[in-house]
Amino acid sequence: MTDLTVRAWGTPGFSQPLEPVTITRRPLREDDVLIRIEFAGICHSDIHTMRGDWGEREYPLVPGHEIVGIVEQVGDKVLNYRPGDRVGVGCFVNSCGQCHPCELGEVSYCEQGPVLTYGAYDGGELTQGGYSQAIVVRESFVVAVPPGLDPAAAAPLLCAGITTYSPLRHWGAGPGKRVAIIGMGGLGHVGVKIAAAMGAEVTVLSHSTAKRDDALRFGAARHVSTAVGLPEDLHNYFDLILNTVSVDLDTSAYLGLLRFDGALVQLGLPGLPLQTPTRMLTTRRRSLSGSLVGGIRETQEMLDFCAEHGVTAEIELIDAEQINQAYDRTVASDVRYRFVIDAATF
Amino acid sequence: MTDLTVRAWGTPGFSQPLEPVTITRRPLREDDVLIRIEFAGICHSDIHTMRGDWGEREYPLVPGHEIVGIVEQVGDKVLNYRPGDRVGVGCFVNSCGQCHPCELGEVSYCEQGPVLTYGAYDGGELTQGGYSQAIVVRESFVVAVPPGLDPAAAAPLLCAGITTYSPLRHWGAGPGKRVAIIGMGGLGHVGVKIAAAMGAEVTVLSHSTAKRDDALRFGAARHVSTAVGLPEDLHNYFDLILNTVSVDLDTSAYLGLLRFDGALVQLGLPGLPLQTPTRMLTTRRRSLSGSLVGGIRETQEMLDFCAEHGVTAEIELIDAEQINQAYDRTVASDVRYRFVIDAATF
Repeated sequence: MTDLTVRAWGTPGFSQPLEPVTITRRPLREDDVLIRIEFAGICHSDIHTMRGDWGEREYPLVPGHEIVGIVEQVGDKVLNYRPGDRVGVGCFVNSCGQCHPCELGEVSYCEQGPVLTYGAYDGGELTQGGYSQAIVVRESFVVAVPPGLDPAAAAPLLCAGITTYSPLRHWGAGPGKRVAIIGMGGLGHVGVKIAAAMGAEVTVLSHSTAKRDDALRFGAARHVSTAVGLPEDLHNYFDLILNTVSVDLDTSAYLGLLRFDGALVQLGLPGLPLQTPTRMLTTRRRSLSGSLVGGIRETQEMLDFCAEHGVTAEIELIDAEQINQAYDRTVASDVRYRFVIDAATF
Repeated sequence: MTDLTVRAWGTPGFSQPLEPVTITRRPLREDDVLIRIEFAGICHSDIHTMRGDWGEREYPLVPGHEIVGIVEQVGDKVLNYRPGDRVGVGCFVNSCGQCHPCELGEVSYCEQGPVLTYGAYDGGELTQGGYSQAIVVRESFVVAVPPGLDPAAAAPLLCAGITTYSPLRHWGAGPGKRVAIIGMGGLGHVGVKIAAAMGAEVTVLSHSTAKRDDALRFGAARHVSTAVGLPEDLHNYFDLILNTVSVDLDTSAYLGLLRFDGALVQLGLPGLPLQTPTRMLTTRRRSLSGSLVGGIRETQEMLDFCAEHGVTAEIELIDAEQINQAYDRTVASDVRYRFVIDAATF
C-alpha cells in the first residue's frame, strides 16, 4: 500500500497566501481511518499560524482542525467506524497516551503536548490539516457525527464547540447557574448556544452592540455592552465567565463580576500576564483559570449533546478559492460566525 | 438584666501595647450563649490589627478569635448548648444571613462582610475578642469542642484549623492527592497535620530547613527548601498548593508546580497583585484561587475531624502578661507554632 496523494489548500512558505498544494497521506495502519473530507471550518488560529504570527513552520503547510467527512476505508483493527459513517476530527490527532491527563482521557492537556492536527510532528511525520480532500487519523482521535447534525454547520463544533462545551461542563453550567460569555465571535456564539442549551442563564459581554439580536436569538438572556465599563448591577453576579477574546482585559474587574465560588476561565491567550489583587480571589473564593479545547471522549459527548439540542455553528459556506478573502474578513470580524470550506472545491 | 463587666487584655489606643482593660458584654438575648473563656490563641492577624498595620480602629480594643471556653448561661431559645458544655468561637460572630453565601452556610464569604469577632460593628456595638474572661455570642456562631481535644491546643483550630481545613476539603485533599503547603507557621503546621490526616501526600515548601523534622513529624512526606528555587522534579506535580504566607512569591512559578486540574490557593494577602501568563492556566486547566477561613458548620466538621484524627495545634501556653512579648516573638517567627493565652490570667 502506498501513500495517498490528495489535493489541498495550504501555504507554500512563511506568511504567504494559501494556494492549491498536493500532499500525501500515510498508508492505513491497523488502527487508522481514512476520511473523505466534506467540510473544513476556518478557525482564527489557522490564520495566526498561516500568517506567521506564531513563528515559522515547515512548508508547505495545510491548516484546518474542524473536519467533517465520510469514512472511506478502515484499518484491520478499527472497531467503531465503517465506510460510509460520517465522522469528525478536531484539534488533535495523537497524544502520548501515558501521562496523567492522557490516562484521564484529557488529551488536550497531554504533558508531552498533544499532536496538533496540522503543523506538528507525529512520529517524524509533519501533520497536515483539513483543508484537503482526505485525511488519515487514528481511530481513537475520530468522533462520530450524529445524523441529526448538518455536517457543514457541525464542522466548527470540532474546535469552537468543544472549546466552550468543555469548560461549561467542567464548571457546572446548568439550571440556576449564571454564565457570562465575553465576546461573541466564532467561539463565543457557539458557547452562548451550548450554555443556553445546558439550561444556564446566559449573558453576553461584548464591546459592541452589533450582535445583540443574535445573542438573544442564540439563547442569551441578556447582552451587555462593555464599551462604557462593566455595569454595577452585574458585580458579584456570575457563577462562570468564559473569556473567548484574546485582547488584554482588566482581569480584576471581571473577577469582580463573579459571586461566591465563581470562576473566570480564559480560553484565549492575551499578550500581557493576567493580574489581580489577592483579595479579589479570597473574599469570594473566586478562581482564575484557563481551559484548552477538550478531550476526544468529551468531544463525542459534545456532538451528541449538540445533536440532541439542535446546536450548530452559524456558518458561511465558501469555496476553496475564497479562503484568503475569508481570512481577511475573519480578521476584520466580518463573519457571522464561522467560515466553512466545501471540501469538494479543493 | 444588665451588661456583664469582664476583665480583658487589649490596646487602649492606636498602635499601643496591650494592657489590662475592662469591657462589657451584652445581656443575654434569647439566642445567645455566655461563655467563660478558658483559652485564647494568638493569631498573626491580631498583631497586625493591634499594631495598626491595617489602620486605626475604635479603642480600647480587645483581640482574639481563637476561643475555647465553657458555657455559663444560655438564652431561652438556645437549643444546642447547655451550661457546662465546652465550646469554641472563631473569627465571626454574626453575618447578614440573607445573601447567597450565607444561605449556603458560608458565612465567611457574606456579601455584607461577616461580623468579625473583634473590631467590627454588630448592630452598632463594637465587638471585643477573646483575650477576656467571657464572651456573649449567638448560638449559631458557637461550635462544640469534642471531648477528645485538649482545649488549649484546640483553640488555634478555630482560625488556623478551619482556614486550612476548608480549602483542603473544597479542593478534594485525600488519598492519591498531592498537596503542598507553602510556609509552616501557625496556619501551615496545622494544614500539614490536617492534610496528612485526610490521607493526602503532603509536601512542605519552606524557605528555611529549620522545621524539616517537625514537618515530617506532623505527617509530611517531604520538606523542600525553596531558598535556591523550586526543584525541577516538582514541576507539574501537585494537585493542590496552599499558600499560607503573605510575602510576594512568583505566582507563575508556583503554578508551574501544579499538574492537570491543580489549584494554587492563597490564604494570606501579599501586597503586590498576583500575576501569571495565561498559558500557565490554560495548558493544564490550572486554577489560581483564594480561600477565607470557612463557615460555622464546616468549623464544627473540622473540630470533629480533628478529634477523630488526634489533630491539634502545637502551642506554647502563656499568661496574659506575656502577650506583648509573644507578639514580638511571633513577628520574629520565634514560636512553635502558636501562642495560646490561659484566660485564667486575665
